[in-house]
Amino acid sequence: MSGWDAILDNARRRDAADPLRHLRDRFELPEGVVYLDGNSLGPLPTAARAVVADAAGRQWGEGLIRSWTAEDWIDAPRRVGAKIAPLLGADADEVVVADSVSVNLFKMLTALVRLNPQRWRIVTEAGNFPTDLHVAAGVAESLGLELVSVPRGEVLGRLDDRVSSLLLTHVHYRTGERFDMRAVNAAAAAAGVPVLWDLSHSVGAVPLDLPGEGAEYAVGCGYKYLNGGPGAPAFLYASRHRRDALRPALQGWMGDADPFAFRDGYTPAAGMDRFRVGTPPVLSLLALEAGVETFGGVAMTDVWAKSSALFDWFAGLMTDHCPDFRLLTPREPSARGSHISFAHPNAWPVNNALIERGVIGDFRRPDVLRLGLTPLYTRFADVAAAVRHLAEIVETGAWRAERFNRASRVT
Amino acid sequence: MSGWDAILDNARRRDAADPLRHLRDRFELPEGVVYLDGNSLGPLPTAARAVVADAAGRQWGEGLIRSWTAEDWIDAPRRVGAKIAPLLGADADEVVVADSVSVNLFKMLTALVRLNPQRWRIVTEAGNFPTDLHVAAGVAESLGLELVSVPRGEVLGRLDDRVSSLLLTHVHYRTGERFDMRAVNAAAAAAGVPVLWDLSHSVGAVPLDLPGEGAEYAVGCGYKYLNGGPGAPAFLYASRHRRDALRPALQGWMGDADPFAFRDGYTPAAGMDRFRVGTPPVLSLLALEAGVETFGGVAMTDVWAKSSALFDWFAGLMTDHCPDFRLLTPREPSARGSHISFAHPNAWPVNNALIERGVIGDFRRPDVLRLGLTPLYTRFADVAAAVRHLAEIVETGAWRAERFNRASRVT
Repeated sequence: MSGWDAILDNARRRDAADPLRHLRDRFELPEGVVYLDGNSLGPLPTAARAVVADAAGRQWGEGLIRSWTAEDWIDAPRRVGAKIAPLLGADADEVVVADSVSVNLFKMLTALVRLNPQRWRIVTEAGNFPTDLHVAAGVAESLGLELVSVPRGEVLGRLDDRVSSLLLTHVHYRTGERFDMRAVNAAAAAAGVPVLWDLSHSVGAVPLDLPGEGAEYAVGCGYKYLNGGPGAPAFLYASRHRRDALRPALQGWMGDADPFAFRDGYTPAAGMDRFRVGTPPVLSLLALEAGVETFGGVAMTDVWAKSSALFDWFAGLMTDHCPDFRLLTPREPSARGSHISFAHPNAWPVNNALIERGVIGDFRRPDVLRLGLTPLYTRFADVAAAVRHLAEIVETGAWRAERFNRASRVT
Repeated sequence: MSGWDAILDNARRRDAADPLRHLRDRFELPEGVVYLDGNSLGPLPTAARAVVADAAGRQWGEGLIRSWTAEDWIDAPRRVGAKIAPLLGADADEVVVADSVSVNLFKMLTALVRLNPQRWRIVTEAGNFPTDLHVAAGVAESLGLELVSVPRGEVLGRLDDRVSSLLLTHVHYRTGERFDMRAVNAAAAAAGVPVLWDLSHSVGAVPLDLPGEGAEYAVGCGYKYLNGGPGAPAFLYASRHRRDALRPALQGWMGDADPFAFRDGYTPAAGMDRFRVGTPPVLSLLALEAGVETFGGVAMTDVWAKSSALFDWFAGLMTDHCPDFRLLTPREPSARGSHISFAHPNAWPVNNALIERGVIGDFRRPDVLRLGLTPLYTRFADVAAAVRHLAEIVETGAWRAERFNRASRVT
């Protein structure tokens, strides 16, 4: 294995030359762990520990109800949305934080299908992330619409004047494939179909320019690349040119134009505030704010350049040392996100064996090993260490002991 | 004001004899504050500070994605639901924690109106809490139903075979009036109408026996009497005899029978798990668990006995010392919840003046002073101090300086 010495040496040189290397200090990463699952749950930002302690101990404990105004909890969904906006290429007032991705998909989708009541079909990709499919099925079933799920290559061919909305996940959770957002938006616009983008595996991972690429509606996740903490609230985006026409079926007092008037009738708030529904989970929301701030002063083009370099490094090492693992993710940068996936018949026990060695990635059924490349804190040396462990696990058959380990995890 | 010495002496004697007096140690309450707004946001449980620090620092920071299984985050919605269940008189598996009250109202209401598709009317109380009205209006509008809001005295007269569901808040947020749950359920059952109870101002406030009183469907709030923290997740209850027929329009992957199979098709999970939708906000959820545990070992009959005594003490002192304040809350214990409301033309500046003196209550438009009686930590001496301040504020005209103070707060 002496070849690994040279590889690790090379990795360390690359890390020393990495212009983003100082960002790793923004996180608390446990000793001895190579964390390649930040695409599933981002790690704890150093600042989040203090933020959460302050939110509970001082703001809640001492401020009590007064903190809704004194600490501006009431505007936090807007404030944190404004901090996410630059990562989308959007303006501050085009983004708001609320609820979960699933609930936000529902709100946005019910609003979109109302725009064209004479159309009765929702189109999406078969094999899309399950919650996207489940939400769309629930909307279709309850509103008497039809849900059509087709392979990604057939999506654009299904857009016609029967289609009320197209729901797509920009970067695929399993394979990492990325849609050409500009091309899809153009084709959909030509057919008069609004597109709802799920950016859960895109935001903080790939550079986004929603207005520039013609994207009008989107939702996304706070707990993956945004490092917002487990189950962090999600966000919604709607173009300023479209949002005032939107009326989600799910409406609540925090989305009213004047919640504290306590009126019987509902008047949707101006702008994105109408997508707020109930009282937001403040502790989780403030942790998300600390997570979003880990991107402070960082250009997404630099993040993406490093992600691409990590990808090439990873893919190259795998070709050399783990040739039985079949790359599922496109090599072409514009066609993928910021994770790398391999198919292997023993992916499940192999992943368990990796975790035993402190290399944390993800398994996705039926046979996929999925590893996150999160440039704010992942080093070239981490990737080299992961591939070295992987090669050893395969060579020594160490994975066999892990066949019956039933640990499972969340996307 | 020498009469107050005797009153305060009496209060202290009552506090010393209070069998619940040791429960105050379960909370961190700031010095110099009389907190009479726990019906809006419960105070910080002493245990919650450590729970939140551990959830962020150790579970998230060190455990990372592994904590979904190692710390059982994945079952927390069920586990915390099971801890809320005794406060409802329900079984552990009849309650689950998810989302906000508003979102849960939507889920349950869309499920109920599906049970009787030939019925087209939702009935509720005019002046119900706004989010209940807004959610019901959204459901009605999107599903082509009719929402009928009538004064509380007319509700039962509107139940007939056109009505698909009745949505009521058990204890009114403003006046504290409580519906006779058993009588309403019986009348609704006779008309074949399912009743959805919003227990936001009931749970942890009044003794509940949902199965015994014929209640089949309910939602409720985690951040008021349950002390779960700002924007804590809410809960849902459905009778074990009914729940398997329920199909909310809002469905997501966490409500699927096997989320980690990542299947395209949705199969509702057994039991209450189908009311889960997206990934729960773990930090806020674990804080809620600490909040619910402040009721550990406490009988709701004892809580209610003290609440009633605090109410009588409060109402009596007000009659003697603040006769201009008109009691809005029924004196009859079974007809009210655990807060006390008074109408007064200057309620807004008076409340601001109270807050200036460290007595934290709530103002509700147009003219209501609302004060929470939360027996786990409120003392008779706190009530006496509040009334004494109130009397002084009125006598001295100190409230006049507060007429233009625009601070506002959340229910």
